[in-house]
Amino acid sequence: MSTTVSPLAPTDVPDMPPIAGVKLATAAAGIRYKGRTDVLLAVMDKGTTVAGVFTKSKCPSAPVEWCRAKLGRGARALVVNSGNANAFTGKTGRQATALTASIAAKAVGCSANEVFLASTGVIGEPLDATKFNGVLGTLAEQAAPDEWMAAAKAIMTTDTFPKVATATAKLGKSKVTINGMAKGAGMIAPDMATMLSFVFTDAPLSSAVLQSLLKSGVEDTFNAITIDSDTSTSDTLLAFATGAAAADGAPKISRASDPRLKAFAKAFNEVLANLAEQVARDGEGARKLVEVIVEGATTKNSARKIAMSIANSPLVKTAIAGEDANWGRVVMAVGKAGEPANRDKLSISFNGIRVAKSGARDPSYNEAEVSEVMKNPKIQIKVALGLGKSRDRVLTCDLTKEYVAINGDYRS
Amino acid sequence: MSTTVSPLAPTDVPDMPPIAGVKLATAAAGIRYKGRTDVLLAVMDKGTTVAGVFTKSKCPSAPVEWCRAKLGRGARALVVNSGNANAFTGKTGRQATALTASIAAKAVGCSANEVFLASTGVIGEPLDATKFNGVLGTLAEQAAPDEWMAAAKAIMTTDTFPKVATATAKLGKSKVTINGMAKGAGMIAPDMATMLSFVFTDAPLSSAVLQSLLKSGVEDTFNAITIDSDTSTSDTLLAFATGAAAADGAPKISRASDPRLKAFAKAFNEVLANLAEQVARDGEGARKLVEVIVEGATTKNSARKIAMSIANSPLVKTAIAGEDANWGRVVMAVGKAGEPANRDKLSISFNGIRVAKSGARDPSYNEAEVSEVMKNPKIQIKVALGLGKSRDRVLTCDLTKEYVAINGDYRS
Repeated sequence: MSTTVSPLAPTDVPDMPPIAGVKLATAAAGIRYKGRTDVLLAVMDKGTTVAGVFTKSKCPSAPVEWCRAKLGRGARALVVNSGNANAFTGKTGRQATALTASIAAKAVGCSANEVFLASTGVIGEPLDATKFNGVLGTLAEQAAPDEWMAAAKAIMTTDTFPKVATATAKLGKSKVTINGMAKGAGMIAPDMATMLSFVFTDAPLSSAVLQSLLKSGVEDTFNAITIDSDTSTSDTLLAFATGAAAADGAPKISRASDPRLKAFAKAFNEVLANLAEQVARDGEGARKLVEVIVEGATTKNSARKIAMSIANSPLVKTAIAGEDANWGRVVMAVGKAGEPANRDKLSISFNGIRVAKSGARDPSYNEAEVSEVMKNPKIQIKVALGLGKSRDRVLTCDLTKEYVAINGDYRS
Repeated sequence: MSTTVSPLAPTDVPDMPPIAGVKLATAAAGIRYKGRTDVLLAVMDKGTTVAGVFTKSKCPSAPVEWCRAKLGRGARALVVNSGNANAFTGKTGRQATALTASIAAKAVGCSANEVFLASTGVIGEPLDATKFNGVLGTLAEQAAPDEWMAAAKAIMTTDTFPKVATATAKLGKSKVTINGMAKGAGMIAPDMATMLSFVFTDAPLSSAVLQSLLKSGVEDTFNAITIDSDTSTSDTLLAFATGAAAADGAPKISRASDPRLKAFAKAFNEVLANLAEQVARDGEGARKLVEVIVEGATTKNSARKIAMSIANSPLVKTAIAGEDANWGRVVMAVGKAGEPANRDKLSISFNGIRVAKSGARDPSYNEAEVSEVMKNPKIQIKVALGLGKSRDRVLTCDLTKEYVAINGDYRS
């Protein structure tokens, strides 16, 4: 496993403010790793609402099934462990989630139905939930409002840096805060599964409002990134709203269409976008952050499919790794997407330099100029289809030998 | 570019018999490569029928568009060049196909509408068809019945070995012969596009019969392989039937449902399957041939989608490269396919050794035994879904650092 921090890691890490109603604590429970934390407990005040979106995998992990079943009620605790994904573990997996929730409920003093769970790590190994005995009780006692960086570190697997983001917004006349953390790496890292993200706010939002915000928020953030086209069995994004800002006069919002939500929704989406970009920046073996923009499509959905076809193409990704503005491969990826496209109307640019126009090489193409911009750690591929007015954008990273090494060398 | 022959290359190369009515010749026209042949001319007798299947890319190459428009009539000549794909070349690409066909027509003494074309190589570079002037005339004079290996070599790009196959079958009381050749490598090799394959027979088959055979034959052969999920703009498979065996008493077949076709169809499919497997064996950087079998699916189409999801997963492919029987990644790939699957009914085996059963690790799993079989150059991944009776099979190869090097290093 790589221990070098990705060259694409953000250079300024935000100071994470507390969120009223949320306390965090971490511990080393020895689930798999030695010498590092691997359990996070978040304790939320009574009245906290929760929303979630999950992997679309037909073979989801036991914690994903647990969380799906508990949505719509309140939340008092979140337990996240790294080192073991509790995925493809059959009946023992379901038993492990129930036991973990029951230990956490006792520690926090709530119902097991108010405990949310996420696991990331090896697939197919039984998770020994008895390891949480004692540990969660201690964590509940130690939980404090300022442990955000420690929390983000405890949920990492092959991530090379912890991922946090924060924002504030006006809700009515009050200031509310949004904090988020994420882990990524590959959709499955060496033997490990998962993209996990947790977002917390003190805004007083109903579960339905929070779910609506989350569902629309992920569309252009977490659903618009790809590392390697592989979807984990454990992808989980949970949002918690403690409502503590109501004490400062923040209005309680119970309709997603409430106009007072506008500024909050913007800040919430910014946190999601920030975290999602960090996941792309920490893709396994990544040396380049790649932004794919597709314009002039007949629909946004069509633009998304073409952008994903480009972002998932191994040949496009290896070309970027080789600092090659290989627009032929971009054409290939547009063509294979199966969406409306007219070869003779296509234009393609790399970092603002147009290399192909109207279905052929741009007459003004200058190889030296293009080679120079391809050295940039951030590469923007823009495709203009020339068919309609719709547009979309996705983020990915390049495909390097290091990706193959991380995912193929660990046994040999 | 790699010059080492793939370790998966077939060890016995067949002697290619002549096909009555077909003559071949190759030349070095200097399109891109130095010191090797890069043009193939096949000349067919009058009365030859032709069928074709092509890339589904929305951005096909000019030769693909040319061939599609000419199907349904007869064929007298096939011109294939390597080094330049004549793809994404705009109007000049269409002019190049017309000029090439006209030069070939003059050389062979036929109509340009009876000339079929395929190009493989760089995308986006104009193809200078004037280079065929003179060359094709000489080739038409030199064309001979026994140039099959030379032909298979002339159409190579980053292929590490030429790909040929041959079979015979009874048609009525006569023996007829089927010869085929293919080129593959990546869907796009360094800057290059294409899977090309050409199959020839002396059987007297109508165009409609040949098209029907080809359409059903590719389904479980060329359409059931993947190297890297990338689809070229130039994929072309053409079949030609000279009908010369009619002189030996072979019956003329004009209905696809004719029962006399049975043995021929079987042999024809064997040639396609043989060539398709060779393409998988010569995938860029391949060190393992991977056969993915999905059983117990609700439909064959569903089994195909799941098998392709596994075969295209970078994480499954890198695990195979690392000789790791990582069934967690296979579960992941089953889950992301979006097809009916029940985690708790899944069984997975590698080279006949079951590693997962009923949604959890097989209790009899023996790591040492599994590690041993993963050293085999051919890996079979079998997934039993336990839902229905349908089955499918696809071939792929592993994903190695060499793939990334071939496709990413050539510039740096």
